[in-house]
Amino acid sequence: THIKSGAEDFLLRLEPPPLPRTEAVIEYTNGMFIWQPASSVIQCRISSFHKDSKMKGMKSFIAYQLTSQLVPSHVNRRYKHFDWLHARLLSKYPCACIPPLPEKAITGRYDDDFVDERRKGLQQWLDRMCRHPIVSQCDVLRHFLSCTDGKRWKQGKREAETDRLQGIRYYYAVVSKEPLQKEDYSTAQAEGTEKFAIELERGVRALSDTINDFHRKLSTNTRKDFISLSGAFYGMCRALDGDTHSKHLNSHLYAALSNVGETFKSISLCHAVESESFVQLNECLREYVRLLSTLPPVVSLGKSACLTADEVRRLLSEEKLSKQDASNILSGSSVITRALQAECNFVVSQLRQELLERIKAYLTDRANFYRQLAAQLDSVASVF
Amino acid sequence: THIKSGAEDFLLRLEPPPLPRTEAVIEYTNGMFIWQPASSVIQCRISSFHKDSKMKGMKSFIAYQLTSQLVPSHVNRRYKHFDWLHARLLSKYPCACIPPLPEKAITGRYDDDFVDERRKGLQQWLDRMCRHPIVSQCDVLRHFLSCTDGKRWKQGKREAETDRLQGIRYYYAVVSKEPLQKEDYSTAQAEGTEKFAIELERGVRALSDTINDFHRKLSTNTRKDFISLSGAFYGMCRALDGDTHSKHLNSHLYAALSNVGETFKSISLCHAVESESFVQLNECLREYVRLLSTLPPVVSLGKSACLTADEVRRLLSEEKLSKQDASNILSGSSVITRALQAECNFVVSQLRQELLERIKAYLTDRANFYRQLAAQLDSVASVF
Repeated sequence: THIKSGAEDFLLRLEPPPLPRTEAVIEYTNGMFIWQPASSVIQCRISSFHKDSKMKGMKSFIAYQLTSQLVPSHVNRRYKHFDWLHARLLSKYPCACIPPLPEKAITGRYDDDFVDERRKGLQQWLDRMCRHPIVSQCDVLRHFLSCTDGKRWKQGKREAETDRLQGIRYYYAVVSKEPLQKEDYSTAQAEGTEKFAIELERGVRALSDTINDFHRKLSTNTRKDFISLSGAFYGMCRALDGDTHSKHLNSHLYAALSNVGETFKSISLCHAVESESFVQLNECLREYVRLLSTLPPVVSLGKSACLTADEVRRLLSEEKLSKQDASNILSGSSVITRALQAECNFVVSQLRQELLERIKAYLTDRANFYRQLAAQLDSVASVF
Repeated sequence: THIKSGAEDFLLRLEPPPLPRTEAVIEYTNGMFIWQPASSVIQCRISSFHKDSKMKGMKSFIAYQLTSQLVPSHVNRRYKHFDWLHARLLSKYPCACIPPLPEKAITGRYDDDFVDERRKGLQQWLDRMCRHPIVSQCDVLRHFLSCTDGKRWKQGKREAETDRLQGIRYYYAVVSKEPLQKEDYSTAQAEGTEKFAIELERGVRALSDTINDFHRKLSTNTRKDFISLSGAFYGMCRALDGDTHSKHLNSHLYAALSNVGETFKSISLCHAVESESFVQLNECLREYVRLLSTLPPVVSLGKSACLTADEVRRLLSEEKLSKQDASNILSGSSVITRALQAECNFVVSQLRQELLERIKAYLTDRANFYRQLAAQLDSVASVF
């Protein structure tokens, strides 16, 4: 046949698995394809980390201690284990957004602040994986989170690496019971989604950059402006201090100006403080930039499936393909495009909820910030 | 004698006026020399202006209409009349701060905005003169504010220009009844005052420059920052608009983000508005910069008088000067230094009161500004 989409192995059902196995179910609700929600959610916490070594201290590394409901105690994992897990998930799920890990440390950079920063990044990544309805259910993640035995660990690793249901073959394990429609998902729709994924990533990135820039300026330029204001009022105090005749009458003005100097100094310090809500909103946005940057390849695969479906329909109309073969391929194609829709919808639903939450907190916090400035200014105005 | 201070004419009483005349009284209250307050305060208003011409329209000019309690109707004055009055006051009062007039218009610049701006400047200048306890009482100002008759106008002008009690001779008309102390005012005190006058002018100038700079940045940089924020939120809306699957679920987030965009736009506009209290504080500070820049020459004359007094005391101790001559000169010197103190105290007392008032209004206004931002942010946070 003429079908070339990178998905042939699955679409043409060249080597179906000997025993059918379901790893993901796509539901159809309110006109949308969505992943079936996970029956249980894993709560995992990187509770601590410590420096460890092996080969008689020749090789030192950071061990992160992970706790979850999957084990009574905890497991220790190194960055390289995370790296391995990340690679496994990437290989296994062509239909899921697997965000990149935080950057690996430059060798030997073991100071606590840096490691703690990376711990936060790894925690964020793990949380994202544990919240994913499909990824969170997979053996390899559970193995990573729970295995404490060295022998079983190696065995689990080997099993994951030889998993027959990974990459394009993963779709053999995806089930969608909704009957096939005439044109389940058009190439135009896939292209629209492709564009949407790019635009959304750009939008989130621009928002993050803009808010970052805004806060950078607040803590540099604006802070300095208030320091200048403070200095100018203190300068007036110093000048009044030189009054040779009526200094005793200046004490009220002097105190008032000095209070203003103090207030503007305090306001400048308020601008130096990084607000928690800004940090959280920004981390959320940065995470979505990383997450959304993994969406285009997922969409791209769906678009390939659409193009294949177009081709199949053409071949069918020209009677160059049997009805059975065409039906099989169209059905396979729809699994891919429905998985794409489910993943898209999942990512956007998460973004929707988290963005609403973070932005609301941020705006409330900004309002409090300005109210605090107002209160300080009112308070100093009242001494005049 | 060796006395050289620019004040010889008065200190040596070379040509005392034939008839004594009192134009200013210095009181001694709470250890301070102050001008006797004026018995009546002139309220003068430049109520309007119009373009006028003479010599059959060959020469056009702006006529300002001045109303005050001195005339039942009004008088018309041109800028050149103000200029003349200003020169007269400068000549007459070596002991008073006569601020410069607002700049003369470039010939032919008669557009209403410009003329109205100058009207405000002239009004401010007139107010300052009318509030001065000594200057406000002088014939030339009253003549300027009240004379409507052309013939009397010329006569009054001539009288003012030939006034025998002007410049250093003005001190013949200044009375201070407080007995002379051993060292009424020391050279060191005069030098302290000299320094104070300069430092105060610098302080006020720096405050004005700093606040100006701050507000310039608010209306440019900060305004633009909020436009960027607004744009970034609108950008997110546009991106969400491209959602191919779950657009109907985005309407809440879309509306919220769009509201934030709207709010930040509105906040950016708030930053474009020049606040009245800032304008008034700034005008007040700029006026004091001009007023205080006229203080050093006044102080300088007082310092000369101190140096003369030092010299006289030395000559007296060396018995090179008669007790009577020394007493006369020291008495004259004290009139000059007491006038200097009275003027300094008057200027600082005005500054004290006006600054307190303006800064309080400014701070209250800034507090309201920030409270307004807070209210807008709270309001938009509530739609999330």
